[in-house]
Amino acid sequence: MDAIDVIRAKRDGAELTPAQIDWAVDAYTRGAIAEEQMSALAMAILLNGMTRPEVARWTEAMIRSGERMDWSALSRPTADKHSTGGVGDKITLPLAPLVAACGAAVPQLSGRGLGHTGGTLDKLESIPGWRASLSNEEMLDVLRSTGAVICAAGAGLAPADRKLYALRDVTGTVESIPLIASSIMSKKIAEGTGSLVLDVKVGSGAFMKTPEKARELAETMVAIGSDHGLRTVALLTAMDRPLGNAVGNALEVTESVEVLAGGGPSDVVELTLTLAREMLAAAGISGKDPADALRDGSAMDVWRRMIAAQGGDPDAPLPTANETHQVFAPSSGTLTRLDAFGVGVAAWRLGAGRARKEDPVSFGAGITCHARPGDEVKEGQPLLTLHADDPSRFDRALESLEGAYEVEASGAPDLLPLVIDRIA
Amino acid sequence: MDAIDVIRAKRDGAELTPAQIDWAVDAYTRGAIAEEQMSALAMAILLNGMTRPEVARWTEAMIRSGERMDWSALSRPTADKHSTGGVGDKITLPLAPLVAACGAAVPQLSGRGLGHTGGTLDKLESIPGWRASLSNEEMLDVLRSTGAVICAAGAGLAPADRKLYALRDVTGTVESIPLIASSIMSKKIAEGTGSLVLDVKVGSGAFMKTPEKARELAETMVAIGSDHGLRTVALLTAMDRPLGNAVGNALEVTESVEVLAGGGPSDVVELTLTLAREMLAAAGISGKDPADALRDGSAMDVWRRMIAAQGGDPDAPLPTANETHQVFAPSSGTLTRLDAFGVGVAAWRLGAGRARKEDPVSFGAGITCHARPGDEVKEGQPLLTLHADDPSRFDRALESLEGAYEVEASGAPDLLPLVIDRIA
Repeated sequence: MDAIDVIRAKRDGAELTPAQIDWAVDAYTRGAIAEEQMSALAMAILLNGMTRPEVARWTEAMIRSGERMDWSALSRPTADKHSTGGVGDKITLPLAPLVAACGAAVPQLSGRGLGHTGGTLDKLESIPGWRASLSNEEMLDVLRSTGAVICAAGAGLAPADRKLYALRDVTGTVESIPLIASSIMSKKIAEGTGSLVLDVKVGSGAFMKTPEKARELAETMVAIGSDHGLRTVALLTAMDRPLGNAVGNALEVTESVEVLAGGGPSDVVELTLTLAREMLAAAGISGKDPADALRDGSAMDVWRRMIAAQGGDPDAPLPTANETHQVFAPSSGTLTRLDAFGVGVAAWRLGAGRARKEDPVSFGAGITCHARPGDEVKEGQPLLTLHADDPSRFDRALESLEGAYEVEASGAPDLLPLVIDRIA
Repeated sequence: MDAIDVIRAKRDGAELTPAQIDWAVDAYTRGAIAEEQMSALAMAILLNGMTRPEVARWTEAMIRSGERMDWSALSRPTADKHSTGGVGDKITLPLAPLVAACGAAVPQLSGRGLGHTGGTLDKLESIPGWRASLSNEEMLDVLRSTGAVICAAGAGLAPADRKLYALRDVTGTVESIPLIASSIMSKKIAEGTGSLVLDVKVGSGAFMKTPEKARELAETMVAIGSDHGLRTVALLTAMDRPLGNAVGNALEVTESVEVLAGGGPSDVVELTLTLAREMLAAAGISGKDPADALRDGSAMDVWRRMIAAQGGDPDAPLPTANETHQVFAPSSGTLTRLDAFGVGVAAWRLGAGRARKEDPVSFGAGITCHARPGDEVKEGQPLLTLHADDPSRFDRALESLEGAYEVEASGAPDLLPLVIDRIA
């Protein structure tokens, strides 16, 4: 087989054969297809699409490029959740211990921040001592002893995806639904979970800006899951405004702990409980109300043990930023808009995210929202607090907030429902 | 500016701005855009196209990536010809000295064989001693003393195109009309010719398989030429069957010398004269009939001096292949088909072309055609002679000839006219 033949076939609108897909993914992983050849193929896939059998096979080939994890030694059913990423989306933090407290095992492989969206591992690393990298044996130990583990994917898991993702990131080929879906699903299937709940974000702060695009992605992923015998459910959820009040690494850990303590912003609580119920149902666990596990402290218990098992001190004070800057309401009225993308970019510019992959993040940086869309505000009251280690970052962050919020004398916000749709 | 922004713009169907094009071509030449980024951009251009202003600017940017040659020191008007490549297309060999014999200066930068199509430089290198690489000063000397020069383009000419061409070759992005047109025209404009005649080949043995595609390419190139103030004419000519009887490096030199001696196959003579008349008209030279220059030996004279000026011995015997193999007519009747692509691939497999860029060619390898489409043939008469240094090559060459020719009891061949159309 020849790289150019495969590229030409997809370029000219043909369906790739299973043999072509298997060869292309394997040859790329081995280095027999060059980076510049794979990027041309990725662009052809982005522009000409892939059929359902092509996506299924591409995913399968990426899974087979590495190891496949196996949790059959555990006595509990496994459940996992994946979010396509958003602003203030800290849901994994309270969700994993909550679902474990209700009886499932949650082997949650997570990622780092990408552009204006935060990463679960960056958030947890703001906890002093906490380690994201675990061996497979350590992962199993933590799962066994606490019921939940949140860690980085090892290098052995879908190495084809790891290589391809880095390439897509620099070649304008990220925004392909078949490539996004196969990237996510190859890791989740190789991770060996028995059931999967997908949280597909919709809106300005998400990769999918419209419900239509999000639905297409969700349907593609659910199809891949069922083609691989994985119980998969997807929810389409709102990312037109930030989730919760805190955006930034340590700020989001604090808010997550509030949820585990039975408090926290209502949207974070509601989405956590909704996803927990979906995960328990997908794992075949019935008769448990996760709201009880928040109330009775059992979810908090799992959280504390899980953090400690990965070297973290759940009682240590979290890093805070050196400087803050307030944004005040320009007039009295209703906050009719608080744009997720604008807030996300501002938090990123404050240091919560990375400009380059190798940059460190600032744990304390970010934004606290003092009002949510729909709230009445008074002229001069604080709307947002910006946190940064370096005060020179405030100017550019404020630029991204220009036009990102609006206070109107009368009127109501035009918001997406928190849960827009469910695809199973 | 950022490579990903430019890739995304073209990917999403936007027209690139002049600033984006200038930056992309320059950054790629400098290495600031990586190979894998340019290949994604090339695929997006191939699939989404470029507008006339984009193609003109892209060409301009490639010209400006290097030097621009200047022939204003010559007393004669300059004329050049470019063929998009075919099987048995040796026209440049008799044409350049013929047009020089009629009063133009012909600074002909040529290339090497690509896939199943031959390369002018490979053909001329079969002449003992002949050198393809000349400095700009040597080029000017040969032009001054003989009126014509055929040589390789120097590294200083459109380096952006050189780099991009090598990339397109391995990434399935050759077949883009805007990229083909800008590649050809950037070199021809940088070469500094005052007029240009394009021979756009059509048919199985050409890159453009249909007159429609060939016309699109021809119109794009003529538009670029006139946008740059270069008098440009394009002919669409037949490449459904081989041109002439000889296919292969030294074999084609021999046939070219026959034409310069006043003989040779009628189609080679006719196309040579047609292109010569176009070149003379484009160069503003009137009152000369190139047929006279073939008859009176003046074209042959220029040929001999031109070959000698580049170190070649025009009287030296040419290399011949070690082995031959005959293909006989399977029945009596009319040869209704002799497919250019089949013959081209067979000659390539016999050693006339290269499998890899760095491979040498065999000068003696190739095919001699003893009958042409339309000729009556008798069962058992030789149709083709295959020439190769290594007899183990005959089998694979014969495979490519299967179905490439047909002898029918009655019927006439369905051929393209030698000159299909003229675009000015």
